[in-house]
Amino acid sequence: MDATISWDFSNLEWSAVGDPAGLKAEDLEPFWERAQTAHNDLMQRRDTGKLPFYELPQQQQDIDEIVKYAQSVHSKFTDIVVLGIGGSSLGPAALYSALGRQVENVHEMPRFHFPDNVDPFEFDDLLNHLELEKTLFNVVTKSGGTPETITQYLIVRERLEHKLKDHYKDHLVFTTDPEKGHLRRISREERIRAFSINPGVGGRFSVLTPVGLLPAALAGIDINALCRGAAAAVSTCTLASVDENPAYGIGLSLCLLRDLKSVGTVVMMPYCNRLLSCADWFRQLWAESLGKKVNLKGETVHWGQTPEKALGATDQHSLVQLYMEGPFDKVICFLEVEDHDVDLVIPRIYPDNADLDFWGGHTLGNLLNTEKQATEAALTENGRPNLTAKFPSVNAFSVGNFLMTLQIATIFAGSFLGIDPLDQPGVEMGKILTKKRMTR
Amino acid sequence: MDATISWDFSNLEWSAVGDPAGLKAEDLEPFWERAQTAHNDLMQRRDTGKLPFYELPQQQQDIDEIVKYAQSVHSKFTDIVVLGIGGSSLGPAALYSALGRQVENVHEMPRFHFPDNVDPFEFDDLLNHLELEKTLFNVVTKSGGTPETITQYLIVRERLEHKLKDHYKDHLVFTTDPEKGHLRRISREERIRAFSINPGVGGRFSVLTPVGLLPAALAGIDINALCRGAAAAVSTCTLASVDENPAYGIGLSLCLLRDLKSVGTVVMMPYCNRLLSCADWFRQLWAESLGKKVNLKGETVHWGQTPEKALGATDQHSLVQLYMEGPFDKVICFLEVEDHDVDLVIPRIYPDNADLDFWGGHTLGNLLNTEKQATEAALTENGRPNLTAKFPSVNAFSVGNFLMTLQIATIFAGSFLGIDPLDQPGVEMGKILTKKRMTR
Repeated sequence: MDATISWDFSNLEWSAVGDPAGLKAEDLEPFWERAQTAHNDLMQRRDTGKLPFYELPQQQQDIDEIVKYAQSVHSKFTDIVVLGIGGSSLGPAALYSALGRQVENVHEMPRFHFPDNVDPFEFDDLLNHLELEKTLFNVVTKSGGTPETITQYLIVRERLEHKLKDHYKDHLVFTTDPEKGHLRRISREERIRAFSINPGVGGRFSVLTPVGLLPAALAGIDINALCRGAAAAVSTCTLASVDENPAYGIGLSLCLLRDLKSVGTVVMMPYCNRLLSCADWFRQLWAESLGKKVNLKGETVHWGQTPEKALGATDQHSLVQLYMEGPFDKVICFLEVEDHDVDLVIPRIYPDNADLDFWGGHTLGNLLNTEKQATEAALTENGRPNLTAKFPSVNAFSVGNFLMTLQIATIFAGSFLGIDPLDQPGVEMGKILTKKRMTR
Repeated sequence: MDATISWDFSNLEWSAVGDPAGLKAEDLEPFWERAQTAHNDLMQRRDTGKLPFYELPQQQQDIDEIVKYAQSVHSKFTDIVVLGIGGSSLGPAALYSALGRQVENVHEMPRFHFPDNVDPFEFDDLLNHLELEKTLFNVVTKSGGTPETITQYLIVRERLEHKLKDHYKDHLVFTTDPEKGHLRRISREERIRAFSINPGVGGRFSVLTPVGLLPAALAGIDINALCRGAAAAVSTCTLASVDENPAYGIGLSLCLLRDLKSVGTVVMMPYCNRLLSCADWFRQLWAESLGKKVNLKGETVHWGQTPEKALGATDQHSLVQLYMEGPFDKVICFLEVEDHDVDLVIPRIYPDNADLDFWGGHTLGNLLNTEKQATEAALTENGRPNLTAKFPSVNAFSVGNFLMTLQIATIFAGSFLGIDPLDQPGVEMGKILTKKRMTR
C-alpha cells in the first residue's frame, strides 16, 4: 500500500491545450535559473533549521507519544470535538474525512466534530447532542489566544466542570506552544494534558504536528504510515530538478500560469468525496501563503491565485459549464483515485429499456472515473489547462504523500516569487477592529 | 417574522473603496438604458409565459398537494434520501441546511441525506447505515435520464425490492417531467407516486418546484412561508428602477465589476453555518447561467464570473488574507444574520487573566457579527468591493426571499449581457465522451 501519488502535468502544455493558456517550453526556460535559486534557498533554510516542517515526518518520538496517549484514552470516548480554527481545524478535518472511515474496527472508534466557527446555533446544537461524560475536547491554538477557540473553550469548560466536577480535566487535551500562551499556562496550573506544536511551524503547515496527528491517532488512523508517505514526498520533493520534483513542478507551473497567462484561479477537483476536505486544507495553504500585498523586497505586488474547490462528478452539474466555456482564467487540479476500496455494481433491472440497461454491469467507481477522464478530455479539448494527481487508493501513506507535496509546492512558490509564505499580515486589521468593537 | 432581506450596496462605490475596483456613478450611467431594455425584455418574456419560475410562489394548488403528501408519509420514515444531482440536489440541500434544524418537533422529523455523487465508498457507506424499512428515496431528475441519478436509483431499487418485495413502491417518490422520460414511464407502469416539474423551469431555477418543496415539506419546513418570501421578492424585483430593485442592483453591479473592473470572482460569505449551502446553490446558479462561450448574437465572448464560497468567521483564518491583500479581482457578498435564534454567553472563568476575561459576558453571536463588521470594514479600507445581504433571522420567509432575489438577479444579468442564462451547452461533450468510454 506504500505507493506514492503520481502527477501528470501533460495537459498544462501548449501542445495539449494550445492558446491562450498553454505553457510552451520556451515560456518556462527563462525561469529555470530562478527555480534553481529558489531550490537552493529552501535547502539552505532547511539546513539551518528555519523550515522545520520538512522534518516533521521523522519525529518518531512525538509520533510514539501520540499513539500511546491515543491508545490509552480512545475507548473512553464516543465523541471527540476538536476546538480549533484555520490550520488547527482544516488539517485534522482533512485527515479525518479522508481516512477516518476506512480504519479497522471503525465502529469502535469515536465520532469526530470540528465546530471551527463561533456560530451560536451550530455550537449549541452540537453541545446539545453530546454526552459530556463520553466526550473529549481537543483544544488547539498555537498562540493560546485565538478568540474563536478560546471563547469556545470557556463555554465548554464551564459545562464540563458543572457536569463532571473535578473530572473535567480528563475530558480536555490541549495542543499548543511548548512554553508560551494562556493554554500552556492553564495546562500547567490545572494539570491538563497538553501536546506541543513546534514553535517554528505555522498553522497551515501543522498537519503533521500533534495538531493533525493527535486527532488522527484518536480516530484510529495509522499516523506512522501517514508520516512514511510524507517522508517519501520529502525525498522526492527535495530533488533539484523541476522535472523530477513534483512539488516544484506544481509550484512553478501554477505561478507561471498566473504570471504569464493570467490564470488567477486554481480549482482542486477530487473525484472522491473523501478527498474534498483536502481541497479545503489546500485553499488555506495556497491562499494565505501566497496572497500578499508586498514581496520580500518591499515592493507592492498584490500577488495571489485563488484556490477553489469543486467535487467531481457532482460539480459537472454546477461549475463545469463555466470552466469549459468561461474566461481562460483557471487551471484544474484533478484528484483521481484508482481503487475506491469499495465498489457497487449497477444492476440490470429494465432489460427492455436500452437507455437504462446501458449502465447495467458497470460499477459506480467505473462511472465516476470515466466521468473524470471524459471531463479532463473535454476541458483539454476546450483549451483549459489541467493536471492530475492520481492516488492508487486513499490511504494514510498516499494522503501523507499528497499533503507534504503540496506544502513543499507552496513554500517553493513563495521562494520562487520572492514572497514570504509564512506570514499573514492582512488579517491583523480585522482582529484589531473586532477587539475594539467588542470593548465598546 | 415576514421580514425581507435588506441589501447594502454602499461598499461597492468608489467613495467607499476607491481605485481600482470602486464603481462611480459615471461608470454606471452609460448602462442605465441597457438595464431598462433588459427589464423590458424580462417582463415581456414573463408575460408570454416563457419565464415560469417567476410564478412558482403562487402555485398554491401544488403547494397544498405537497403538504398533504408530506403529512401523510413523514411519520413513517426515519430517513429520507434525495437522489439527484446539480439543481436537483443543491436546492433541497440549501433549504434543509438553512431551515431543517429549527422546525417545530425537530426530533420527530426524518434525517435527510443528499448523496449527489456517484462515489462508491460514500454511497455504500450511506446505504449500510440506513434501515431500508424506514427510509424514503426521493428520486429527482427532470429528464428522467441523468446517469448519476439513474444508476443510484437502479442500485437502490434492487435493494428495496430484495428487502421489501412489492412494498418497495412505498419507499420511492419521483420528481420528474409531467409527461416525458424514463422516470415518468416507470412511475406509470409500476404505480409509484410522482410529482411534476414544470417543463419550462430548468434545474438551477427549480428550488420552488417540487424539487425543493417536497423535501422541504417532508423536513417540516413551512413551504407556504418560503413561497410568501419568494413572492415578496418577485414584487420588489420586478420594479423597473435599479435603485429600488435589489435583484437588478446585484445583477448590474456584479456584471459591471466584471466588465469594467476585471473583478472575475464573486465570493458569497455567510457569517452563519446554516446559510453555507445557499452559497453552493448560488455557485451553480451564477456559474452555469452566465459562464458562456457565445452570446445571443453568436459572438464569442467567453463570459463568466467565478462564484466562490467562504464561511465567516472560519475563513478569516484561511482565505481572507488573500481577499485583503491579493489582486483586486474579487467582490465579497456577505450574508449577515441579525438574530441567530440561539445564543451562548461566554462565561468568566479566569477573572485574573485580562486577555481571557475580555470575552466574558459577550455572546458568541455578538462575537460572530462583530467579526463580520470588522472584516467588512477592513476589506473596505483595503479597497475591496463588498455588499451585504442582511437576514433579520434565518427563517422560511427570509430564505425564500433571498433565493428568489438571486434567481432574478441571474436572469437579469443574462438579459443585460445578452447571454442565454437557461442553457448549458458546455457540458455536452463530457456527457458524450462518458457514454462512449463506457461502451468500450
